Amino acid sequence: LERITIIGLGLIGGSLGLALKQAKLSNIEIVGHDKEPTASSKARKRGAIDKTEWSILRSVDKASMVIIATPVLTIKEVFKQIAEVLPPGAIVTDTGSTKTQVMEWAEELLPPSVSFIGGHPMAGKESSGIDAASAEIFQGCTYCLIPSANAAPKAVQTVVGLADTVGAKPFFVDPVEHDSLVAAVSHLPIILSSSLVAATTASPGWREMSRLAATGFRDITRLASGDPIMNRDICLTNRDGLVRWIDEYIVELKRYRALVAEGGQELEKEFIRVWEARAKWLNQAKIPREAEGAPVVEIPKASEQMGNLLFGEKLARRGEEIMKNIEKREQDKP
Amino acid sequence: LERITIIGLGLIGGSLGLALKQAKLSNIEIVGHDKEPTASSKARKRGAIDKTEWSILRSVDKASMVIIATPVLTIKEVFKQIAEVLPPGAIVTDTGSTKTQVMEWAEELLPPSVSFIGGHPMAGKESSGIDAASAEIFQGCTYCLIPSANAAPKAVQTVVGLADTVGAKPFFVDPVEHDSLVAAVSHLPIILSSSLVAATTASPGWREMSRLAATGFRDITRLASGDPIMNRDICLTNRDGLVRWIDEYIVELKRYRALVAEGGQELEKEFIRVWEARAKWLNQAKIPREAEGAPVVEIPKASEQMGNLLFGEKLARRGEEIMKNIEKREQDKP
Repeated sequence: LERITIIGLGLIGGSLGLALKQAKLSNIEIVGHDKEPTASSKARKRGAIDKTEWSILRSVDKASMVIIATPVLTIKEVFKQIAEVLPPGAIVTDTGSTKTQVMEWAEELLPPSVSFIGGHPMAGKESSGIDAASAEIFQGCTYCLIPSANAAPKAVQTVVGLADTVGAKPFFVDPVEHDSLVAAVSHLPIILSSSLVAATTASPGWREMSRLAATGFRDITRLASGDPIMNRDICLTNRDGLVRWIDEYIVELKRYRALVAEGGQELEKEFIRVWEARAKWLNQAKIPREAEGAPVVEIPKASEQMGNLLFGEKLARRGEEIMKNIEKREQDKP
Repeated sequence: LERITIIGLGLIGGSLGLALKQAKLSNIEIVGHDKEPTASSKARKRGAIDKTEWSILRSVDKASMVIIATPVLTIKEVFKQIAEVLPPGAIVTDTGSTKTQVMEWAEELLPPSVSFIGGHPMAGKESSGIDAASAEIFQGCTYCLIPSANAAPKAVQTVVGLADTVGAKPFFVDPVEHDSLVAAVSHLPIILSSSLVAATTASPGWREMSRLAATGFRDITRLASGDPIMNRDICLTNRDGLVRWIDEYIVELKRYRALVAEGGQELEKEFIRVWEARAKWLNQAKIPREAEGAPVVEIPKASEQMGNLLFGEKLARRGEEIMKNIEKREQDKP
């Protein structure tokens, strides 16, 4: 029986558990830990984990893979707590929304005997917490993977298998690049949603406004309902990238302000332009994308060595294909 | 057979037709006109209208009620075109997203023999056009109503019946107040969504970013997929209110920028605050709200006179209740 431990049983941790259970992998036991006992017991009742372990130290005992799905700043604390008791050879991964600091903490705090592969499934929902968890949220989503320098090839392959098993598309990316990209498409939106809620609800007219606010307002403010601690940690660990994007955005907003104030032809052209740009994105986002991007660690060339400990023979073969694609892409590079 | 004419068979016009047909009103015939013949024929095929009329002049022939569901600037043109052929006593309403200019155009262009009641159902969808139309989009939504000074009480009552029939909550509001409120909760969001799409898709990193953009980005940019002409018209007819709100928003965004840059405790408090404010709004928005707000015209006190031409006996009684509520609210005012 191979043990997978999930630390942090919120939306993402709980959903990973549900998606893994749904895959009906043989010989896998999922142990769950959360500092909130109610989250743990709900996760077990919902079938996201096989058993709960109230001690974080004991939860990683004999674990082949440890998935840390807590807010970003908590990941550092978890590293400190479990570092000494992690079984040698264990695979450690996380689901944090920022990656540069997580990779630094892993290098600083985790023993060299374990393989750390940073992870970030680009999946979310309006509600947070175990109650909102669902096996489906990873279907077709991009799953960023960042192997640490000393991660064993088999360990990288196993985390690719994890992403694949839950229905996501593995995507190798550099941590600094990751944080800069998500600052624009993920963290800036959190700030825009939240500041819109702040600006409107603090307005003297809010009581009347709130009656006219409809589905458009609901959708644009959705991210303001994200877990506040998670959002805080995202801002604190991606501060420079985020501030830079807020500044860029204000420039853009002022350009729009001028277009509205002028009221000329350019405004219509602008709305057509963004309509088209978004339609193009939505269209492309539907295309199945397999492990894209460049690996930041040397990926083993001998794909026959890719036996997959946790995710079985079928996935091992699937893994071989992915690795071949990556190799091919590397060779094709100019 | 009473005739209702819908001019403009896009998302809103088409959806109103579908919702009216779904109500299975007896003795009602719905005539549809759209400058695009394909929209008209699709609307008829989808059962949103009983018949199409390619001539806008003939489409309002013998109409008891005319619903104009075009982009805002087109409403003015439609007024000009149909003014001379509108049957005396006809009820005219629109669904435009801004109301101050529409009310001015109505006063200037429509004959005094018709009753104009400005309307704005606070309903929308990601996609526009007749293909996206659905009878369900008005369920529980607020339907702003603004009777013109010379609107007949029965005409006001009939448009209340229209809102009620499609499942919406009639809400009387002053046109200037309406435009100021929707500037914040409806039109500013269009600008935020659109400028976010503009800022990100124009970025050199967009190709990579687009792969990481997920459901959060999809939701916050939804309004950038609104009809470009509709969005342009909204901006042009609510210019001052919108510019003022963009300015207020930039102030708020700069406050958030400072909170992120400082990285102190205040950021967490802020995220908790907006989380709570949005939860409260979502919670309140679910409460069924019946004709609220203050009527801008004198509402007839004799509710027994409220026979309802188009929407039948049951709705006439329902209309009496609504009017009683409005009277009561008026009396309760300090």
